[in-house]
Amino acid sequence: MNEETRRRVLEAATRLGYVANQSGRSLRKGSTGVIGFMMQTGPEITGQGDTFFMSVFDGVQTVLARHKLDLVALLCSSDQDPDAYLQRVVARGFADAVILSATRLHDARFELLARHNIPFITLGRSQTDVGQPWIDLDFEGMAEVAIERLVKSGHRHIGLIWPNGDLNLGHLFVHRSQEVLARHNLSLSPEHIFRATPSETGGYGVARQIMDCETRPTAVVLVNETLVTGLYRGLEEVGLMPGKDIAIIGRQSPQAQFLKPSLTCFSLSLRDLGISLAEGLLSVMPEYKLHYPDAVKRLVWPMDLIEGESS
Amino acid sequence: MNEETRRRVLEAATRLGYVANQSGRSLRKGSTGVIGFMMQTGPEITGQGDTFFMSVFDGVQTVLARHKLDLVALLCSSDQDPDAYLQRVVARGFADAVILSATRLHDARFELLARHNIPFITLGRSQTDVGQPWIDLDFEGMAEVAIERLVKSGHRHIGLIWPNGDLNLGHLFVHRSQEVLARHNLSLSPEHIFRATPSETGGYGVARQIMDCETRPTAVVLVNETLVTGLYRGLEEVGLMPGKDIAIIGRQSPQAQFLKPSLTCFSLSLRDLGISLAEGLLSVMPEYKLHYPDAVKRLVWPMDLIEGESS
Repeated sequence: MNEETRRRVLEAATRLGYVANQSGRSLRKGSTGVIGFMMQTGPEITGQGDTFFMSVFDGVQTVLARHKLDLVALLCSSDQDPDAYLQRVVARGFADAVILSATRLHDARFELLARHNIPFITLGRSQTDVGQPWIDLDFEGMAEVAIERLVKSGHRHIGLIWPNGDLNLGHLFVHRSQEVLARHNLSLSPEHIFRATPSETGGYGVARQIMDCETRPTAVVLVNETLVTGLYRGLEEVGLMPGKDIAIIGRQSPQAQFLKPSLTCFSLSLRDLGISLAEGLLSVMPEYKLHYPDAVKRLVWPMDLIEGESS
Repeated sequence: MNEETRRRVLEAATRLGYVANQSGRSLRKGSTGVIGFMMQTGPEITGQGDTFFMSVFDGVQTVLARHKLDLVALLCSSDQDPDAYLQRVVARGFADAVILSATRLHDARFELLARHNIPFITLGRSQTDVGQPWIDLDFEGMAEVAIERLVKSGHRHIGLIWPNGDLNLGHLFVHRSQEVLARHNLSLSPEHIFRATPSETGGYGVARQIMDCETRPTAVVLVNETLVTGLYRGLEEVGLMPGKDIAIIGRQSPQAQFLKPSLTCFSLSLRDLGISLAEGLLSVMPEYKLHYPDAVKRLVWPMDLIEGESS
């Protein structure tokens, strides 16, 4: 076919509404050029980790851009079954590979993707393990450092705010806290495990829960970064000043350093986390693995303690 | 073009690798079952509107679930050209219809989608108009109410924080503010238009800019919801108490009501906004339009002023 014919054919095809499209070509190569990042949304969860994910996406996209891959967020509403949701994603076949977040204690999504031979990496571990790469934040290390620090400062009644739902990280965080306390012959009182929706309103409510305790905790550790402004306001209303009347250790958020008093918190580079997630994923994709011989396969990602005024 | 020609064109296009592929067809049959929501990401933008979008997504998903449609977020990094990005989305053809955000003063994306006959709705207006439905927040109404209120309270030197980049909303907001001021024989001094990245660090920096003004503003209005904690901290460090030494009016965020002093802010139901966006979109999709005869086609979405302690 000569150039002129080629040009006319494509013009005619365009008039017929046939997008001269990229995916036509790539479908036959077995690739769509799209990487999916599955995350939870919904009223219970909104506010939790939004800034977190946007920053992680930024790192992921930096890597994907090298290979002209696009990132889409697969938004699974909290009232949908994540397993069924992912099944539809697989059936539609619009992503070459997937990053999973919000891993549960047992997580059927891992097996689904393995069965369909779809490359994936998980942000978070699970008791389910199909040999896929994962990166998880070091919630156990966070519990270790935070509790040790508080015990050394003389705290004997330490509270925790349980993170949302059945996420694996909640189990890791609470179990390790109990271990550290036991090492010092202390224990975690059931009334000191505070349940709250991961929102500022939830944080505000925790202040009341603290006041209602039979024995009031003198320190509280929180994994969620999204409830600390509410917690601060609530504590102020009941007359407790963070860092003076009660120690608070939390997670970094855009607000943390600008709160008054500033928050003692655990921090990590979310962009670097995104970069490692993307490289870890590409390292198990046949087309890209040669570029990433040294990508991490499994990593507990350390977090740094930033001293603030709240503890 | 007759049937025979049509057939031959498509055959030839196929030989050229331009497969008239499944996804190409499904764009017009509406059978990918996926709706795309295009949004900006990137280090400059991260922190801006994350919670905003998550809440809007929640409303959109509520509607899409009725029709077993899934929502994906099309994440366009701020260092990518949004027009080229959307071209790839169209070429890949993995969405039946699209919701566009971050509309620019002139926006080529509108024409691209119209040319390909892909149903879409925009969150935000533009001087570009191809007759598509849109919903826009009432930034002009916000400017009107905020400036009127401040002038009535005796303020003569009112500052604004210009929202990010070339977004259409920035132009609307600043122009209307100037109009309202002119009505009272006041003007917006160039040194009172503060530029800041839409982040807490940006907000913190604005406090210094305020102190450096030749004539210090006695009130500041901000459209971005993501810099107020930083602004508060910065103001405190320079000895200005919101609501006492300087009036602040902003946008609602998860933190706004828990700040001390609480923020006077403009509020709307983001979930309802998401519901209307989805219904507006479905009302221009051939398969669904009969279900939504009364969906809004074009709407300036009102915001309510919530009285706080900061003004």
